[in-house]
Amino acid sequence: MKLSITVELQFHAAQPVDCLLQCEVAAMPEQRILSGVTRLPASIAIKRVPAQDSVGERFWITAEKDVAITYEAQVEIARSATDSARLGSLSEIHKTELPGEATQYLFDSRFCAAESFQSFVASEFAETRGGARIAAIREWIADHFSYTPGVSGPHTSARDSFVERRGVCRDYAHVMVALARASGIPARYASGYAPDVEPPDFHAVAEVFLADPQGSGGDWVPVDATGMAKPDELAIIGVGRDAADVSFLTSFGAVSFSGHNVRVERA
Amino acid sequence: MKLSITVELQFHAAQPVDCLLQCEVAAMPEQRILSGVTRLPASIAIKRVPAQDSVGERFWITAEKDVAITYEAQVEIARSATDSARLGSLSEIHKTELPGEATQYLFDSRFCAAESFQSFVASEFAETRGGARIAAIREWIADHFSYTPGVSGPHTSARDSFVERRGVCRDYAHVMVALARASGIPARYASGYAPDVEPPDFHAVAEVFLADPQGSGGDWVPVDATGMAKPDELAIIGVGRDAADVSFLTSFGAVSFSGHNVRVERA
Amino acid sequence: MKLSITVELQFHAAQPVDCLLQCEVAAMPEQRILSGVTRLPASIAIKRVPAQDSVGERFWITAEKDVAITYEAQVEIARSATDSARLGSLSEIHKTELPGEATQYLFDSRFCAAESFQSFVASEFAETRGGARIAAIREWIADHFSYTPGVSGPHTSARDSFVERRGVCRDYAHVMVALARASGIPARYASGYAPDVEPPDFHAVAEVFLADPQGSGGDWVPVDATGMAKPDELAIIGVGRDAADVSFLTSFGAVSFSGHNVRVERA
Amino acid sequence: MKLSITVELQFHAAQPVDCLLQCEVAAMPEQRILSGVTRLPASIAIKRVPAQDSVGERFWITAEKDVAITYEAQVEIARSATDSARLGSLSEIHKTELPGEATQYLFDSRFCAAESFQSFVASEFAETRGGARIAAIREWIADHFSYTPGVSGPHTSARDSFVERRGVCRDYAHVMVALARASGIPARYASGYAPDVEPPDFHAVAEVFLADPQGSGGDWVPVDATGMAKPDELAIIGVGRDAADVSFLTSFGAVSFSGHNVRVERA
Repeated sequence: MKLSITVELQFHAAQPVDCLLQCEVAAMPEQRILSGVTRLPASIAIKRVPAQDSVGERFWITAEKDVAITYEAQVEIARSATDSARLGSLSEIHKTELPGEATQYLFDSRFCAAESFQSFVASEFAETRGGARIAAIREWIADHFSYTPGVSGPHTSARDSFVERRGVCRDYAHVMVALARASGIPARYASGYAPDVEPPDFHAVAEVFLADPQGSGGDWVPVDATGMAKPDELAIIGVGRDAADVSFLTSFGAVSFSGHNVRVERA
Repeated sequence: MKLSITVELQFHAAQPVDCLLQCEVAAMPEQRILSGVTRLPASIAIKRVPAQDSVGERFWITAEKDVAITYEAQVEIARSATDSARLGSLSEIHKTELPGEATQYLFDSRFCAAESFQSFVASEFAETRGGARIAAIREWIADHFSYTPGVSGPHTSARDSFVERRGVCRDYAHVMVALARASGIPARYASGYAPDVEPPDFHAVAEVFLADPQGSGGDWVPVDATGMAKPDELAIIGVGRDAADVSFLTSFGAVSFSGHNVRVERA
Repeated sequence: MKLSITVELQFHAAQPVDCLLQCEVAAMPEQRILSGVTRLPASIAIKRVPAQDSVGERFWITAEKDVAITYEAQVEIARSATDSARLGSLSEIHKTELPGEATQYLFDSRFCAAESFQSFVASEFAETRGGARIAAIREWIADHFSYTPGVSGPHTSARDSFVERRGVCRDYAHVMVALARASGIPARYASGYAPDVEPPDFHAVAEVFLADPQGSGGDWVPVDATGMAKPDELAIIGVGRDAADVSFLTSFGAVSFSGHNVRVERA
Repeated sequence: MKLSITVELQFHAAQPVDCLLQCEVAAMPEQRILSGVTRLPASIAIKRVPAQDSVGERFWITAEKDVAITYEAQVEIARSATDSARLGSLSEIHKTELPGEATQYLFDSRFCAAESFQSFVASEFAETRGGARIAAIREWIADHFSYTPGVSGPHTSARDSFVERRGVCRDYAHVMVALARASGIPARYASGYAPDVEPPDFHAVAEVFLADPQGSGGDWVPVDATGMAKPDELAIIGVGRDAADVSFLTSFGAVSFSGHNVRVERA
């Protein structure tokens, strides 16, 4: 599947403010960047750094006055369209066999205080393990939550959303991540682009670490509790413990944001 | 400085429970392990994994019934006794020059929601930058907090402690980390051992990433806002974003903890 | 039903500290105080004040050094043993007909942030209203929570308990109150004594304001989601918006608490 | 001082929703209502109830479709312009002498978890008591906070604001209330109108219960930490434990709010 992506960001900094941006699709075997260009005012220097787990890049700028950033890309997604059936067939990696780098994704993070959900998952999903557990959690969220823009915000946590039973992709992904970790399955948060997100915006899904049925080790498998993005139509930007790690804009000082515009089309 | 360390942990699991432990001193140039041994019941297998940022190791066990773990080590600390004067002379690395692996330590984490402190640090510590800022924060915490065991717990965050103005080393380190990050300086949490901790227990300090005056890059510098541990008397176990990452025992299921015993002596 | 109640409280204040106590059974038609006496050191003066909604009394003391307080009472409970069937038959008072003094019990309080549960109750209990809604909530809590001493504390809120799915009577009552208010039914928190609380301690239940089938107005009906106390075996001490209002001891300064002892027997 | 007040509220309910409104100036000796009228669509019935502590009234409506409410009033404020000097001369009522109805204003409430600030106030304001303590707190807030619309919201608590050091009148009042209660002085939250609020909106102040120098008992004294409203230019709507109790609109179901407009002029 080919995707055509256009993003426009506009913001203003009264004084010079260091900003970290993460909005470019990550280059990786499952998603090939056919073309990609980020445009900024000529006066602004870009400094790139590898992003978390070496998935994609972030870039620093020092913003001043009006800043308009445009990112345009054509991406070929080669990820297979994992269906519910396949997810259910993946098995859990026993925790004592997990590679060291997956361990941090078992821990509580800023928006995903997973430990407090241990009793809930043990009782609600007692019958299932591994991929079947993840499929059951995904279905439970889809059944019990309503997709409602405008009721959650940048401080909303998985615990908040679990109480309120509504939110957007960010909130669905946080609950998915928290319930997976509470089940002893490493889970991380992935930001990205997908064509049917409504209203159009950045998208977010969970990724869980499960045994690769083909190979020996484990693999990160995307899971979208909102059901809005199919794996073969998802272009991942970056990953982290939760939304705190993959914000498209983190500013270290006051900026006023005049909005952003995201367009994703099947090309 | 040579330290002699003995730790005893006892807990009980009614059913088999996977547990991740992190209590051994990390091998690194600044701290040489002269001898170190971890003893467990013979029936329990250990699976080691590298810990965060490759500082030290964690190990997995599957606990069942009564579990008693003993760790004994002799460690030679070669870290120089950084004094306030030296800390004040270290300079900030401009954020756009930070290496990628330091970036995550600027973000909000489970117990250190740093962003919400940006206004406070900008006004309270306006005159200082870099190492001088860190020294000023350390002094401010020492002046405004009282070391009080028993009033905080495993869910206490930097925000809680900032309001309550008291706590233990964990809380002091969390506030230090949060105020450093809010100042745009990468900061992580380090667990360890030190001889004068009172009452004797695991210890915790912050580490901040500042420019190395000798070399080119940057370096992690330990900062103890409690004032209980000198750098040359601190044996670090591991590091993470905050206490959620370096718990000495993380259990994935119910265990009842019958206590722990920590002894650290100058040898 | 006659109950015999004995309570012993011991605490220590290094310096004089004003303390507000609330541990005596409230005199009211449904519970007649046959005998009741509170004993304190002779040097300590008592100043009584009516408690919230004129249910019972609180008393002030200025504590200094070691303070031991004993309360002994014989109480005759005349409250009828409301069974589930009766609760289900009580009807909701339309909000616009509520008396002014019930209004505050619709609002969010310290431990019962009810508004955030509106989506959950609307979907989970959609079929029911009034007393039937309350009976359904009580059953849902009983089914989904495990009574577990030691996992919750004085800062645990209804939202926390809703995530963690376990706790003690205080937590059960908070969740009951929050879900009732989210349903538009005024609900308050009542502390009291009951004979089968295990381990023996102060008890707590919710009270909801529903239409009195006999009379015109409304009435406060006790609801115990733990199932430990029958209405005719419950001696109420006081009421409030949540546990913050009916603590048995509120101290305005540091006291060290050496424990309390509660005995309740059918007489 | 005469004030002329006009308020317009517009909102929409797709289905009938019970709403509680509180926007009319309270009649009381210190503020005489010269004229006051509330206009609603003719199809909507109003049911009035006395508000908390019998200060003013709330009214219920069942909203459906588009609802526009207008309130117009002329008010004569007879409250004396308490200056800092006078506040400093008021003395504390010893807690054991407080009337019962003031007691609840010592407790933690939804947005004012006062107890956690006890260490802070004891150390920061150690030198002062009673009215002088309140004056010192007011000054401290004015010095350490910046009035910044748009950064706080309906879930922001006194603890949040204390960390973030900025907000609007609601947040200033919450911090004032929390620090007063932590000092053992009863404090409540008052909503109202004042002419110089910028941008124009509902206003909020704290009220503290201190000894009346003329009389025997105590009295509620308004304290505005924002400094925007003088006591003789403040028309109080209602009081409560915090903002949760005096919202101008509490809806028990989904309404979409299209904005409100507040005009207050010296007449």
